[in-house]
Parts: sequence; C-alpha cells; structure tokens
Amino acid sequence: MSIATREWQLVRRPHGKPVADDFRPVEAERPDPGPGEVVVRTIAMSVDPYMRGRMNATKSYAPSWELGETMQGGTVGQVIASRSDAVPEGALVLHGMGWRDVAVLDAGHVSVVEPLPGLPLSLYLGVLGMPGLTAWAGLFRVAAFSPGDAVFVSGAAGAVGSLVGQFARLRGASRVVGSAGTPEKVRWLGDELGFSAAFDYHDGAVADLLAAAAPEGIDVFFDNVGGEHLEAAIAAFNLHGRAAVCGAISSYNAVSAPPGPRNMFLLVGKRLTLRGFLVGDHADLQPEFVETVSGWLRDGSLVARETVVEGLDGAVDAFRDLLRGGNTGKMVVRLTPDPE
Amino acid sequence: MSIATREWQLVRRPHGKPVADDFRPVEAERPDPGPGEVVVRTIAMSVDPYMRGRMNATKSYAPSWELGETMQGGTVGQVIASRSDAVPEGALVLHGMGWRDVAVLDAGHVSVVEPLPGLPLSLYLGVLGMPGLTAWAGLFRVAAFSPGDAVFVSGAAGAVGSLVGQFARLRGASRVVGSAGTPEKVRWLGDELGFSAAFDYHDGAVADLLAAAAPEGIDVFFDNVGGEHLEAAIAAFNLHGRAAVCGAISSYNAVSAPPGPRNMFLLVGKRLTLRGFLVGDHADLQPEFVETVSGWLRDGSLVARETVVEGLDGAVDAFRDLLRGGNTGKMVVRLTPDPE
Repeated sequence: MSIATREWQLVRRPHGKPVADDFRPVEAERPDPGPGEVVVRTIAMSVDPYMRGRMNATKSYAPSWELGETMQGGTVGQVIASRSDAVPEGALVLHGMGWRDVAVLDAGHVSVVEPLPGLPLSLYLGVLGMPGLTAWAGLFRVAAFSPGDAVFVSGAAGAVGSLVGQFARLRGASRVVGSAGTPEKVRWLGDELGFSAAFDYHDGAVADLLAAAAPEGIDVFFDNVGGEHLEAAIAAFNLHGRAAVCGAISSYNAVSAPPGPRNMFLLVGKRLTLRGFLVGDHADLQPEFVETVSGWLRDGSLVARETVVEGLDGAVDAFRDLLRGGNTGKMVVRLTPDPE
Repeated sequence: MSIATREWQLVRRPHGKPVADDFRPVEAERPDPGPGEVVVRTIAMSVDPYMRGRMNATKSYAPSWELGETMQGGTVGQVIASRSDAVPEGALVLHGMGWRDVAVLDAGHVSVVEPLPGLPLSLYLGVLGMPGLTAWAGLFRVAAFSPGDAVFVSGAAGAVGSLVGQFARLRGASRVVGSAGTPEKVRWLGDELGFSAAFDYHDGAVADLLAAAAPEGIDVFFDNVGGEHLEAAIAAFNLHGRAAVCGAISSYNAVSAPPGPRNMFLLVGKRLTLRGFLVGDHADLQPEFVETVSGWLRDGSLVARETVVEGLDGAVDAFRDLLRGGNTGKMVVRLTPDPE
C-alpha cells in the first residue's frame, strides 16, 4: 500500500535568477503511515525569500537542499489519516515539509493549530507564523525599538516588512517609513497600512528618497533588501541608531559580490549597531508575539494581506515571482480550501 | 601681565594627508590666571588618530576645529601657578588643551593624578588614559568579550590595538591575532605582547592572511583600520561574532568614499553584530579599568610601549607620522622631563 503524492524537486542549482528548468514536478509514492505518523493534506504552502539560499551549494546557516529531493517549507494542512493518539484525523497542523500535496511524517514534527474564525488558515504561514515572528523579534529585540523611534523598513510591502511597519506604528513609533518596488505598493503602504511615508526605490537614489521621507533621520532600520538601502540607512541614522539585518533580497540572485556600504566609518561617530539575526534564535518570543498579534488581528488594527497563487502547479512560478517582488504582503500557494 | 606660550594652530583644512603648511606654530600671550584658574606646564601631549577628523569641516561626532585656533588634545602637566584651592601649585594634572607648552584654564577642567613610581607620566595619555579605556570598553562592553573567544584586532601595534590584544590574552582569549603594517611590529606583537599570531597586511589579501592566522575563525573583532580589514573579519567570524568598530584609520586621509564590505549578507546567517562606539560614552567603566590595568602594569603582565617625540616643535611631524603608522604603541610628544 502506498500514497500517491505530487511534489516539486530541485534538479539544478540556479545560476542567478531561478528558471523553470531548475525544478521538476514529480508523482511519488509515499509509504502508508507507520506507528506515530500522520498523513497531512496541504491546505496552503509558503514560498519565502530564504529558500533561494537553500538552492545554492555554498555553505549558509542551513544546509543546502539536495538536488533530486523534494523541497521543504512552511505548510498548513489537515490530518487525513493518523496513527498517533496525539494528533487525530481532522486536526489542523503546521509542518515544514512543503512543496507537495500530501506529506507523511512523524506526529512529533507537526504543530496542531486552532481554526481562525473569519480568517484564512494561511495566516499561519505569514502574520501568525515565521514572517510575523521575524518582524516581531527583529523590531523589538534585535533593533531594540522603543516608542518614539523613527523606523525605516526596506521591502516594506513584503510579508515581513509590512508587519514591521505596522508593529512599529501600533507601538508608538514617531515615524514609519517604507520602501517598495512599485507605485501600487507605495500607495498601499500609506493608504492601508498607515505608514507615515513611503517611496519607490526606483525613483532615485535611495539615500535621497530616504532623506526626503525622514527629514529628522531614523533610529531603527529593518533591512530586508541590503545593498544601497543599507548604505542609505547608515547615512540617515541618528545617534545610537540600530539596524536589524534580516535579509538582502537585492543580492539573493547575484552571481558576484555586490558593493558594500561605503560609509561604514559612520558607525563610530554615530555609535551605530548593525545586527544580523535569524528568527530561529528567538522562539522564546513566540507566546508574547502570538498573544499580541492575535489581538491586533481580532480588533482589526493590523492588516494581513496575502498574494495567493492557486494550485501546486503554480508553486515554482510563485517563488520566482516572489524574488521579482511580484507579491504584496505574504506570498502563499493554496492547494485546497480551508475546511468548513 | 601675561604668560608667553608656544602653541600649534590649524590654519588650513588638510586635503588627504596633512602637510606641514596646514599648521603653524605661534607665540601667544595668555592672560594671568583669574580666580579659580591654574597654569599648567605641559610635560607630554598626545597625538591621536581621531584628531584627523577634527581637522575636516564635515560634521562629525565632535565639532570641527576652527582654523586659526590652537588645537586640542590630551595632556599631562604640572601646575606652575594656581588660584584654586582645589588644585595647588606642583600638582600633576590631566587636561584636554594640548598642542601648547603652557595652558591657562579653569581648575575644574583638570584632573589631578598621582605620580607613577618607576613609570613615565605619559602613560596617562595611553594605557591609563583615553586609549586604554577605549580598548577596555570596546573589548569588554561593546564586543562583549568572554573567556575562550578568539580575538582579532587591526592596527594591533597601535596605542589601542596593542592593549586590546593584551587585555584579551590576560582575560583568557583562546587566540589573539593582530595585524600591523611592518615586519618589526609583527615580530613585536608575537615576541613581546604574547599575541598568538600576527601578520603584516601588506603581505597579501587580508582575508587570506587572517584565515591562515585564525584557522578556527574569530569571535571578536576590534577594528581600528576599517576597509579591507572589516570585510576580512566578517568572512572569518564564527556564529554570533561581534565587532567593536573603534576607528577606520585606513580611510581618515581618504578624499573619496572607500569601498565597503561586500559580504554584509553574512551578518544574517552568522548573526553578526557590528557596533561603533566612542570612549566618551563609557566613562562609567573608568574605576574598574584603572584598578585592573594599574595592577597589570605593576606586576609586569602588561607591556605599555610608547613612541616618544621630543619637543613641541616635533608635534606636527609626530601627528603626520602617526597617520602613516610610524608609531609602535602610543605616540606621545614629550616637552619636559617628569618631575623628580
């Protein structure tokens, strides 16, 4: 006996931008669940910028994905068969096996979650999941935000950035500035998310655009983009400014080393701190994060937008589109509707 | 009545490397001390890399020096006339008015110091002064050194760097690596200061030299140099590495922005922290610093070397030589012998 599944594999390491031929869809036969295992049907799976790094052979903070193996990632699904007393059939769960329509795995590797009345379960992949905790940990712990700070976030219309800006606003930032890559995103930041100012980084030198958007300077920078954005933030920092360096999507597809910030000497006189982080080091913040953010979702003070691609067949295109900035808010791939 | 003094003034803002004509010696008449004032004869004055920044018109952490004014800096001297009960004639004092043979100033602007039996008073400008506290604060607070860390210091033969390396050794570093600019300095670091390894940064790419000198990587980087050294340290960092960014002497004479580190993306995966600092923010560490370092000086566990230039006439040349790396240990200008 076995279970027929559909999965995506990495078959070639991308050089620069990933192309369709770097991936292949396969039909696989997975064994029936053994004792303690569950079978989970994917409701929605996540595509995230960090996945680009896993596709390289070079050493990173996490192992490279192997060629010819099914790719991994955050997934929310429903248990359709169970040989575990702890996780019964019908349970809603999170797991990390992504990129497939059905997963067979140890019940100890899933987390049971509650339904979200009136809200899609895919929020567990975004605002209530890894991107949300990333925004929370980076802003409040790594960058040590405090009320009254002026905050700049790059990639502000993305899954993480859109939350950083809103968290800062809700916690009393004096000013929240974001950069994004299209006029529509810039309008969304101002009109829907309550950013104080936003700009399209294609419209000029980032340093000039930032200086205009934050004429009093910035105290906190949350960086998802790297490169020119980081140099501009260093220039705009007030004394004791802090950067939480979360990502550098501008360089993920780069095939040679990008130029670095030319103004690092400003770290001394302005006593700046630049600190990189990974969300996995901050799991202890999960309870306060979930409690506060759930409340903000319930009372409507937080906007959690998704860009949804329908169907597993679209997963690779969704990922490639993500790296081009095709998403507003969290990019998710939905395979099946939420259960009633 | 008045007091004849000899002083050095800045008369032109240097473009790139300072040249002799940027400065002029003057003979001045300073008024006799008023109530609460003291007259201090300079024993030794300091020249320091930070002074190069004060010579620029551009905004920095401290005001630019005015053209046609006498330059300032750390000085140790003896009170030769006093109208203050708190600071009597004969007292040994520190003040910040430098670059002159005699200073007239408010007694509240001097700090009385004790003689150093068997040691020169000029140590108050180095190991027991601002450079010493800089090394202390940068290593122990800003970079959060802990025993067992592998430490890399750039400009390791300078006033600050030579102390950073020794402090790290004395507090249990697993490895202390330094870079310097001449073979003699490199030998001195290994033979006299007890560095585990040292290299001349002219001998190749800093990244390669550092990888060879610290094959297990580094946990702490104390940067006095900037530029290529910072990039190399980022590459060599172990997880959770911390840089205390103290200075960037490689760029102080630069007339255009130097290239920045091209590997800033490593901050994320390695969770690195780069933090700039100024010693003035860390004055609260002064008591523990003085107590510990005085003990190390007394018991001979710390080497405090000076490069001494004799006479006020040599002060500008001493400063220019400092920026070329002509010093080993602290560069001081001695005007008069220590009192008996």
